[in-house]
Amino acid sequence: MESSLWSPISGGIAAPRGFQAAGITAGLKVSNNPDLALIVAPYGAVCSGTFTTSSARAECINLAVSRLESTHGAIRAILINSGQANACTGKRGLEDSLLATKTLANRLELNDQQILICSTGVIGDPIPIQALLAGIDPLVAALDEENGDAAAKAILTTDLVEKQIAFQASIGGKAVRIGGMAKGSGMIHPNMATMLAFLTCDAFVPQEVWCKMVKRVVNSTFNCISVDGDTSTNDACLAFAAGELLSSKYFTDLEVGLMKVASHLAKAIVRDGEGANCLMEVTVDGAKTDAEARFIARAICSSSLVKTAIHGCDPNWGRIIAAAGRADISFSLSEVSLSIGEYMLLKGGLPIAFKKDLVAGYMREKFNMHDVDDDALKIRLIIGKGNGSASAWGCDFSKEYVRINADYTT
Amino acid sequence: MESSLWSPISGGIAAPRGFQAAGITAGLKVSNNPDLALIVAPYGAVCSGTFTTSSARAECINLAVSRLESTHGAIRAILINSGQANACTGKRGLEDSLLATKTLANRLELNDQQILICSTGVIGDPIPIQALLAGIDPLVAALDEENGDAAAKAILTTDLVEKQIAFQASIGGKAVRIGGMAKGSGMIHPNMATMLAFLTCDAFVPQEVWCKMVKRVVNSTFNCISVDGDTSTNDACLAFAAGELLSSKYFTDLEVGLMKVASHLAKAIVRDGEGANCLMEVTVDGAKTDAEARFIARAICSSSLVKTAIHGCDPNWGRIIAAAGRADISFSLSEVSLSIGEYMLLKGGLPIAFKKDLVAGYMREKFNMHDVDDDALKIRLIIGKGNGSASAWGCDFSKEYVRINADYTT
Repeated sequence: MESSLWSPISGGIAAPRGFQAAGITAGLKVSNNPDLALIVAPYGAVCSGTFTTSSARAECINLAVSRLESTHGAIRAILINSGQANACTGKRGLEDSLLATKTLANRLELNDQQILICSTGVIGDPIPIQALLAGIDPLVAALDEENGDAAAKAILTTDLVEKQIAFQASIGGKAVRIGGMAKGSGMIHPNMATMLAFLTCDAFVPQEVWCKMVKRVVNSTFNCISVDGDTSTNDACLAFAAGELLSSKYFTDLEVGLMKVASHLAKAIVRDGEGANCLMEVTVDGAKTDAEARFIARAICSSSLVKTAIHGCDPNWGRIIAAAGRADISFSLSEVSLSIGEYMLLKGGLPIAFKKDLVAGYMREKFNMHDVDDDALKIRLIIGKGNGSASAWGCDFSKEYVRINADYTT
Repeated sequence: MESSLWSPISGGIAAPRGFQAAGITAGLKVSNNPDLALIVAPYGAVCSGTFTTSSARAECINLAVSRLESTHGAIRAILINSGQANACTGKRGLEDSLLATKTLANRLELNDQQILICSTGVIGDPIPIQALLAGIDPLVAALDEENGDAAAKAILTTDLVEKQIAFQASIGGKAVRIGGMAKGSGMIHPNMATMLAFLTCDAFVPQEVWCKMVKRVVNSTFNCISVDGDTSTNDACLAFAAGELLSSKYFTDLEVGLMKVASHLAKAIVRDGEGANCLMEVTVDGAKTDAEARFIARAICSSSLVKTAIHGCDPNWGRIIAAAGRADISFSLSEVSLSIGEYMLLKGGLPIAFKKDLVAGYMREKFNMHDVDDDALKIRLIIGKGNGSASAWGCDFSKEYVRINADYTT
């Protein structure tokens, strides 16, 4: 199936049949913006989770890992609060997470093991738990299949725009829908960029297959983006599959759709990165393995020197090569070629004479793209003769990033 | 022997007896600043080298590695050009390096295998080789034991100040001197940056011992600094020992002195980092091993969010813990304590109430320190009960860094 056979539809996270969502203001944020969201999956759903690898991860993440395991993925609801990360809050952090999920479980008449909680906001701040508990009744009352948008707004912290998408395809003669929402980093009260992503799908896939599929998709999308190289204590991606069992011959088709949803959300997070003006897409081909290609592509996207060069629309390819070189993946410089857009700047490890004005012009043209349909600024490296290939996404590094992150308490 | 028994002396790289240095303007830089330096070691000297681990390293680095090996460290001279990194210049880069060292070898009546060349500047730019060759006669004519300062100036690129130091101690009743010079600025995350460092010592130590000693010292000094997380294609540290054989019972004393010289130069590189105002010193104790402590300390020093918080004098400890958490070293959050200066902000993984004004005041006091005798802004973490300990050094992240790097080649 062609990727183009997946068509965009409205509804976001609640677009797939059987899913409901809600988002309300519970008074957790000083700003009085929406701060409490809920996703409820239909009976029989399977959930797969991918979490931060941080050694300082929040208690809510540990709780999610243990419940996904004990229920074999039979999760029915995810509660999400924004404003407080509830990380580095010790025993109280865990107790608040338990209390919140217990209260919601009672209200939904579910087992509390089937409820997860995700938190995003300032590290070290506990959740104003009484406000959250008081919010549960109105939150559940707001549950609706039309409320994906409200949920997508309620999970934001310093993000400028909500990030949601849904696609539909006809698979084996039946309509399959995949929806998703995410939050990244913004610019009003930055303390920690926490990435959260939620995906829903109304075709059922056996848990083992679903977990592997989600892991592959997360590895090539959310795990391939960088705004500032810092990994959060609370990062999580949770993906539901529910509904009629999909025939195994269509798994590949489904994964194409899942990839489209995740890749849209991942790029939307980078576009909305703190101080970001430009989305760059780095593709590495010719590596020994996809994993090696990914390491190099991510090293380039994370390089402060590459990111400042992109900010200056400066085709400083030496920095790109230097970043590739430090990725801890061995390659032979004499086999490396590098292009920015359609302009080849290096071939066989040697610089090619190029019109700097033309390349800088291309870079300026790709700057200031905030529309999700705009093309990224494309950097492509071929580093050898292997079959390994990967893409990664990053943004420019601006004075605005420094201003946002240095001057926030003072 | 106490580290304090090593006293500072003048002379830099040429302070140890038998060493000579020179620095001239050969016309390699458009700015007409000094751009060609030379260090000549006395007969019988042994040289140890530590080089970038980049997969895209310059040809001059490959040449140095091979000559150090073929001569068993019996190197007599190092030629250093600034302005062009001579990296990604392929066959021409190698030919130019061979020609330059051959010409110098003839002039000094040495074997060309005993000559190394180090290059620093723009990646992809070849050396204007005719200008360099024409500079060799005046360079050799300028050789003098008083010219350490001229050499230290000629190796700089975007550095604001030269970096050199020398110490002397009486060891076993005899005066021993150690000198050093370095250049840094950007692309500094050495994994031995365009970091170059040169050390000289007028006590002889057998090659095998000297190489191990230099490696240990480089690991705790140059390999513990970060300006921007980018590792250069040309990083090198070269260290000479020459003169009377030192008794093995004094090796530890000598290493203390070598550590003092290398640590001074490493911190000087960070202080002079692009756009840097503040030197931070991160110490991690209680790790399982020194190597694990070093990984965590370097992750904190390299975090854009920690660096912007330091720039804003904001005691945002959540970012420090998050950076520690993503260092790929497992630890238990409940055993972590964190201090900034004398102020403890976190204990047993939990926040302690603190007066933000006091801590921000300490941070402002430690900001804008360019004098080498000023204390660093100190951050200390205890992450467990192990014996592993390490310090790392980094700088704040400023709008000036972005300005400098957004249009370096344009």
